[in-house]
Amino acid sequence: MIKEKWLAGIDIGGTTIKLAFLTESGELKTKWEIPTDANQGGLKVVKDIGETIREKLLDLNKEADILQAIGVGAPGFLEMETGFVYEAINLGWKDFALKDELEHELGVPTAIDNDANLAALGERWLGAGDGAKDVLFITLGTGVGGGVIANEKILHGANGMAGELGHITVIPENGKQCNCGKTGCLETVSSATGIVQLAMEMIPDYPSSTLAPLMNENKITARDVLVFAGEGDEGAKAVVAKSMFYLGFVVANLANTLNPSRIVIGGGVSKGGQTLLDPLIETYTKFVLKRVGEAADIKIAELGNDAGVVGAAWIALAAKRQA
Amino acid sequence: MIKEKWLAGIDIGGTTIKLAFLTESGELKTKWEIPTDANQGGLKVVKDIGETIREKLLDLNKEADILQAIGVGAPGFLEMETGFVYEAINLGWKDFALKDELEHELGVPTAIDNDANLAALGERWLGAGDGAKDVLFITLGTGVGGGVIANEKILHGANGMAGELGHITVIPENGKQCNCGKTGCLETVSSATGIVQLAMEMIPDYPSSTLAPLMNENKITARDVLVFAGEGDEGAKAVVAKSMFYLGFVVANLANTLNPSRIVIGGGVSKGGQTLLDPLIETYTKFVLKRVGEAADIKIAELGNDAGVVGAAWIALAAKRQA
Repeated sequence: MIKEKWLAGIDIGGTTIKLAFLTESGELKTKWEIPTDANQGGLKVVKDIGETIREKLLDLNKEADILQAIGVGAPGFLEMETGFVYEAINLGWKDFALKDELEHELGVPTAIDNDANLAALGERWLGAGDGAKDVLFITLGTGVGGGVIANEKILHGANGMAGELGHITVIPENGKQCNCGKTGCLETVSSATGIVQLAMEMIPDYPSSTLAPLMNENKITARDVLVFAGEGDEGAKAVVAKSMFYLGFVVANLANTLNPSRIVIGGGVSKGGQTLLDPLIETYTKFVLKRVGEAADIKIAELGNDAGVVGAAWIALAAKRQA
Repeated sequence: MIKEKWLAGIDIGGTTIKLAFLTESGELKTKWEIPTDANQGGLKVVKDIGETIREKLLDLNKEADILQAIGVGAPGFLEMETGFVYEAINLGWKDFALKDELEHELGVPTAIDNDANLAALGERWLGAGDGAKDVLFITLGTGVGGGVIANEKILHGANGMAGELGHITVIPENGKQCNCGKTGCLETVSSATGIVQLAMEMIPDYPSSTLAPLMNENKITARDVLVFAGEGDEGAKAVVAKSMFYLGFVVANLANTLNPSRIVIGGGVSKGGQTLLDPLIETYTKFVLKRVGEAADIKIAELGNDAGVVGAAWIALAAKRQA
């Protein structure tokens, strides 16, 4: 009997840590969560991860040596090669050797990367990326993030900032203020927050929209906009069209640069599905080079909240091979 | 005595073929040109290249076996892995196995890539790229081209179209017609042709500009615009500022995506030097994320017309290692 080999994928968030065991061929065996305890500058998180993994293996009647490697998604500014966290503002960490500490705790090779990159790798491995060599992944949530996969590898760039697609400028003049300090970023119009802001600006022109009464109560959500747009509400449709115009402009320009074979839209907003895709593809088709457009189709992400732990398991495989 | 090892870099253009011998450590030994004879669907070019290389080695009193590998820049749609030219419209080639034919002719490993990519690799190796791992290269000539180097490798993308930076849209609505069939591409405002078009539109607002009389005779060149802008002509400066605004917008957005450590501007227009760089850097700084901008500086290309043959010699090295 061939001995099973497992990988652990771990996604450290501000409030919860998501964990999963996968086989090396990508079968998800189990997944679970524990609360994030950000104390001790990161050391408590490392101990908690070690403890919950050992417990879970015991629960499942597995020997500790079934675990071959772990991959971890961490927030903040990271150095992927060394697994060093320069700063994770949400967690209050600074200069923390996450990879080394986890290798010490669990005794297996460990890799780290940021959450948007891992979601991109996860979708490529087991989701909408379908194993394509070149994938452009954009995540639309509270903010807008991304991951660029070229030749099966995530681009990290000179200081780990590659894929910061939310801060591509789409409105060069008189754009709205972005959290990054600039104005007119993609994030200000295509994130959940951006969609709500667009609705607040545009719905006054659509007094019969179902969104109008919600707006007067300051209660519009991105989900409302997408649901009503899907039901044919003209005002909501106009808001979605405008938001997706900017996204399509960016996606086409990045496709002309990167020539991906698959473009994947993830994050909470992507639950809008075809309601998002139709206007997005319309703008994309207008701005993309014909031969580039022929190579790449656009799909909605498939793994939802699991994308991060799946991508983390994928980089665990790479860590194992390097070890 | 260690035997010398040379590489040949070859740049096939519509009217001339540029050739050079370089050592493996990047010393340019000699360079020369022959006319392009595009007949026989590519076979004549292959024979001419073989002949001129053998003759040149004889002239230099070198044994044929000093030549380790050759790299070739070819126009048109290529498949880099196989060295197959699907179509080279300028040369009238279709479905031509350029790499195989050259390997047969010269008996050494051969690699091919497109000219903008080779210029990027050339500048990275011996020019303004300074050996940086991640380089964004943009060439401003009659058109606008580019090459994206990530982790020391050119990105080719799904069907060899990566780096088509000239067809990134910068004017989403009512932009000028581009040769590619779209409108508002970077090429329509930042190429030599684009700069002249901008001047024709803008100079009527600057009747005292030195460009005004030239415009009336339909004799403005991009070089005039750059020279007069460098001399302080307000109209010419406004034209350059507008052209470089669009380029800075694109460069910053690509930097936010790719996080390069070096951005290189090449091509004939780049001879404008500081006159281009000043307004370019101003816009770039406005639109780039702070941490991304800290990683990347912008430089003018250094190798001029040699960038192609130098980059070709660089991919020859890779071909030799693979053989």
